[in-house]
Amino acid sequence: MSLIVVGTMAFDAIETPFGKTDQIVGGSATYVAYAASNFVKPVQQVSIVGYDFPESEMNELKSRGVELEGVEIIKDKKSFFWSGKYHLDMNTRDTLVTDLNVLLDFNPKIPESYQGAEFLMLGNLDPVIQKQVITQLKTRPKLIVMDTMNFWMDIKMAELKDVLKLVDVLLVNDSEARQLSGEFSLVKAARSIMKMGPKYLIIKKGEHGAMLFNEDQVFFAPALPLEEVFDPTGAGDTFAGGFIGHIARTKDISFQNMKTAIIIGSAMASYCVEKFGPERLKEITREDISQRVNQFVDLVNFEIELKG
Amino acid sequence: MSLIVVGTMAFDAIETPFGKTDQIVGGSATYVAYAASNFVKPVQQVSIVGYDFPESEMNELKSRGVELEGVEIIKDKKSFFWSGKYHLDMNTRDTLVTDLNVLLDFNPKIPESYQGAEFLMLGNLDPVIQKQVITQLKTRPKLIVMDTMNFWMDIKMAELKDVLKLVDVLLVNDSEARQLSGEFSLVKAARSIMKMGPKYLIIKKGEHGAMLFNEDQVFFAPALPLEEVFDPTGAGDTFAGGFIGHIARTKDISFQNMKTAIIIGSAMASYCVEKFGPERLKEITREDISQRVNQFVDLVNFEIELKG
Repeated sequence: MSLIVVGTMAFDAIETPFGKTDQIVGGSATYVAYAASNFVKPVQQVSIVGYDFPESEMNELKSRGVELEGVEIIKDKKSFFWSGKYHLDMNTRDTLVTDLNVLLDFNPKIPESYQGAEFLMLGNLDPVIQKQVITQLKTRPKLIVMDTMNFWMDIKMAELKDVLKLVDVLLVNDSEARQLSGEFSLVKAARSIMKMGPKYLIIKKGEHGAMLFNEDQVFFAPALPLEEVFDPTGAGDTFAGGFIGHIARTKDISFQNMKTAIIIGSAMASYCVEKFGPERLKEITREDISQRVNQFVDLVNFEIELKG
Repeated sequence: MSLIVVGTMAFDAIETPFGKTDQIVGGSATYVAYAASNFVKPVQQVSIVGYDFPESEMNELKSRGVELEGVEIIKDKKSFFWSGKYHLDMNTRDTLVTDLNVLLDFNPKIPESYQGAEFLMLGNLDPVIQKQVITQLKTRPKLIVMDTMNFWMDIKMAELKDVLKLVDVLLVNDSEARQLSGEFSLVKAARSIMKMGPKYLIIKKGEHGAMLFNEDQVFFAPALPLEEVFDPTGAGDTFAGGFIGHIARTKDISFQNMKTAIIIGSAMASYCVEKFGPERLKEITREDISQRVNQFVDLVNFEIELKG
């Protein structure tokens, strides 16, 4: 039940209303791997790093069943670096620095040992690279999940739409769903996007939860009401990791099971935001995850009797 | 199982991205009554109108079991009039005209026949008037639910906090919860507001659903994903009417039953926004309401199995 994860492994420097970090480990594939490895092994990582990416982090990932054969190390360049500052509402942020560094050379080659993987998670990346990964796979995975962002809609919409034809599940936030479809209503946006290729669409709404669409079905998962969101960086990637991790573990790609996967993704994301970077994800146990999933059950459970 | 409803019965002129109305019937107590009368009779209305409020509307309300003895009619003045224009996102609006008219004379007297009512719904009004109503009741109702808005927080915060000490359930939207508490986190805001008097707090988040807080418990109800919100006017009052209507019908003020009441309020509100004014509320049947409540069950229902 192997899972290939493609994305960045990088450094972030983050400022939030609650504090500030120097350069810490981040990157979409890092968060996905930390989340997904709670549910499925191996996680077969595809990424690129520079000479500066810590070996201790690589070892930590390996110890969790993350295979790194597909992670290229460029000896004379630095890892991708992003720096940003969150506004008070934590839903919006300003990018302060983007140093692409090794990302300019990213031309992923899928190791032979990864061939035959049943599940593929494409983290947010240039859609051209996302497509390169799909076309290298000799057997089409049972489910291809893809994340993207407004940046690619701004500069590579045609390439994005091209790769969308090949994926099963697309993950975007609400404003990205509107931008991609040109529709303001999320219901109309979902219908439009599902005509572009993905049979399933997940719209992430941050503190307002997430929605899953498939044909005429819709599922709504709340976000856990938290006292404080300490650092939202990586929450979307962690959500994706929990989602695909659960799907890969159960090998069940039904709508019903995707609903459960979304709750598990939401539970993982609710842990992620409690500390800077992926720190909190390294601490939690399966027991912690179960407890939080049960909080979601309590949060949305209600009884209906309309008699009388 | 009688219910007293206090609020405005008025005229609105509304402009949305989908259309524009001339003066149509509106007012918080009107919407509450149309919603609540599906569940409980009599609804004992307390309001004030001018010579221009249509008798046909009064008759329509009466035919639904709404008692109007507490509705004062001022023969030489016009009814309260509000005019507003919604922005594209439908969550924000500009007030164009507010003609208080009869509202300047509103000094509600609770009819003797209303005494002993088990439930009280205080629609959005001057908190001084809300308090006057409570103090006129010889027997304290089983549950007092109150709505308010940012306007009263801006100009009558002390009076608002005074009446809050007397109510059981407060309804506000997310920005009002933040303003009232001075807390950005809604979890912290809820804790702070529940120290002001209300044991229960409902935070309405429009298209993002609603949350119910009580002590350390929290419940989240989504809004139904709609293709189009035609006119959001009255949606909050309709929600309140469905909520208190269900509570009054079942006479059960437990947290568990309030969760159900919130789903029913959400279902009613989802009908309200489909047409201008309370028009859609006049058309729907108990069967329609049950069908929509079932859509909420489908929307949030998921299975959890974390074995393996």
